[in-house]
Amino acid sequence: MVIKRDFKGARGRIERVRGTAATLALEAILFLDMANIRYLVGFTGSEGALIVGEKNNYLLVDGRYTSQARREAHDAEVREYRDKVEGIASIIEGEGWKNCGIESMAVTLRDYIKLRDRLGGRELRCLAEEVAFLRAVKDAAEVDKVKEAIGISSSAFLSVLAGLRPGVEERDVALELEYQIRRGGAENVSFETIVASGENSALPHARPGRRRLEAGDLVVIDYGAVCEGYCSDETCTVAVGDVSDRQREVYGIVKEAHDRAIAAVRAGVACSEVDRVARDFLTERGLGKHFSHGTGHGVGLRVHEEPRLSYLSKDRLEPGMILTVEPGVYLPGSWGIRIEDMVIVEEEGCKVLTTIPKDLRVVG
Amino acid sequence: MVIKRDFKGARGRIERVRGTAATLALEAILFLDMANIRYLVGFTGSEGALIVGEKNNYLLVDGRYTSQARREAHDAEVREYRDKVEGIASIIEGEGWKNCGIESMAVTLRDYIKLRDRLGGRELRCLAEEVAFLRAVKDAAEVDKVKEAIGISSSAFLSVLAGLRPGVEERDVALELEYQIRRGGAENVSFETIVASGENSALPHARPGRRRLEAGDLVVIDYGAVCEGYCSDETCTVAVGDVSDRQREVYGIVKEAHDRAIAAVRAGVACSEVDRVARDFLTERGLGKHFSHGTGHGVGLRVHEEPRLSYLSKDRLEPGMILTVEPGVYLPGSWGIRIEDMVIVEEEGCKVLTTIPKDLRVVG
Repeated sequence: MVIKRDFKGARGRIERVRGTAATLALEAILFLDMANIRYLVGFTGSEGALIVGEKNNYLLVDGRYTSQARREAHDAEVREYRDKVEGIASIIEGEGWKNCGIESMAVTLRDYIKLRDRLGGRELRCLAEEVAFLRAVKDAAEVDKVKEAIGISSSAFLSVLAGLRPGVEERDVALELEYQIRRGGAENVSFETIVASGENSALPHARPGRRRLEAGDLVVIDYGAVCEGYCSDETCTVAVGDVSDRQREVYGIVKEAHDRAIAAVRAGVACSEVDRVARDFLTERGLGKHFSHGTGHGVGLRVHEEPRLSYLSKDRLEPGMILTVEPGVYLPGSWGIRIEDMVIVEEEGCKVLTTIPKDLRVVG
Repeated sequence: MVIKRDFKGARGRIERVRGTAATLALEAILFLDMANIRYLVGFTGSEGALIVGEKNNYLLVDGRYTSQARREAHDAEVREYRDKVEGIASIIEGEGWKNCGIESMAVTLRDYIKLRDRLGGRELRCLAEEVAFLRAVKDAAEVDKVKEAIGISSSAFLSVLAGLRPGVEERDVALELEYQIRRGGAENVSFETIVASGENSALPHARPGRRRLEAGDLVVIDYGAVCEGYCSDETCTVAVGDVSDRQREVYGIVKEAHDRAIAAVRAGVACSEVDRVARDFLTERGLGKHFSHGTGHGVGLRVHEEPRLSYLSKDRLEPGMILTVEPGVYLPGSWGIRIEDMVIVEEEGCKVLTTIPKDLRVVG
């Protein structure tokens, strides 16, 4: 089920959902993913539920959020609940709906069972792919927010580069980078910043720790900002002083895998194909088994969203999707390299949104 | 189902799970909640699955986390998966288990359906209350980590107090507080710091924005730190310069509700009773309808965990549970007050773990 994406703006988003419901012969769709709820009606709280019906939409929140929801939400009537499942059930009953779709990736099994049991004979239909791509294609306003996040996080990264030298602790680098991202006007960082040096760089998701940078280290720095809910995500791997010829050589190989993957991005191409381009090149150079994650992912209101640039994906790229491209090589116990940019898919290729050049940079 | 809590340390935790499985006639229990996985086998990554069997335990992770899991995990064999559901299914098949419990609050409906369909005739039994309290009672090492988090966050709060004066933006206060928490040695903040001034203080979960503090404001500051995974959570409401007699009066009422609730905490008492004590007092003073959330919650590896001090709760307090007590009053469009401490339940009462006095403090 591909959702039509020919509407712009918030009202058009609700219409898209109603179109999906109509196609699926559903009287309503229940959303529990807060990113989807924000996307559809503008509510930015951390908990709630949205029911989109053919005529009426309801945003359900608990007492902590009633005032905020009334102030923020458009295109939905705000209702306060004491028990979420009970609140949802009473709307469905009140409207007399015989069926309702439910986001199966955003509801826990426990809440589903409670709601199903509470609703008795009404059908609760599990949706997955039907709503997974709701936010995948970005409109112009969304692209601007992502670009703003990129601008802030990149400036922050460049401002901390001068402090990267032997003796500095990873976690102090991360802290300074996050502080500069926030000082730069971001509402938050989009994920816990990774600063992984020396042997830690071989762990793709290392948390910054007390290790001090040393001459000869590669340092993987993966960071992002959030602006009006929209995320950036970028990774630079830098060299502290002289690194070995082998490190330089592998850096060049990862960089080429990254460049080739970006060159493969355009509307209509399979997501799995972009992954294959990077993976095949690394495999050809004997490094494929050290590339232990996917090549990239969509970015928007969440830092990881659809589509996934994975060999498992069955999806195709569409114009307006914003993606990361981030091949990496990790040699356990030794060192690792990841190079990540963000791009936006276009009909005939893609545009790179991140602005920091990815040639190997030597610091310290 | 109350889980036996007479084991200490990590090995004892696994034994408790096996005891639960045996009581429920389950051959294994599948954990997907990363806090439970950390609690049981020490793995600190952000994604994975743990299967605790009668004899063998398996920690399943994707390629990003294989090295880290091998380094961190105890009491479990590490297996790498490409597709999580497939990885889980092949362990269950390989062991020949006919049934397996599953955390229904930590699995999405989508993953449950995929796993159920993949496993064919094997029983996947939904667990909820049976495992919800796994981490509720803290051992001495856990209490020490929570105390460390409290120490760091409280010191950070006291260090930013001097900067609270008219003209300062909420978000700069939040940023400085979070920076000081991290500088103080915390690995992170335990949630996005709330700094809500003036009319924003009437929103229990306001995000810090561009509003500048003004003389006469009440400012709700809700903050916490994370140390070795364990969280703190504390709220101070401070007055900027002179506040009105009514604000002082309501502050005193909220403070008394808070003190009375803390006085009600002891082993054996119903969680709902602690909530009732605070709520009844506020209702008696005409403020009950403005207390729009529960009285508190457990804190540990997550900042919100069991038990919940809610009128809906059917649970009772046990010695070693760590709780927040945090009544509040929110007058929409005007101002709000919340006062929050952390306590540990004891046989004959409780001990307050937070150290900042909660008398009304005037700054600026």
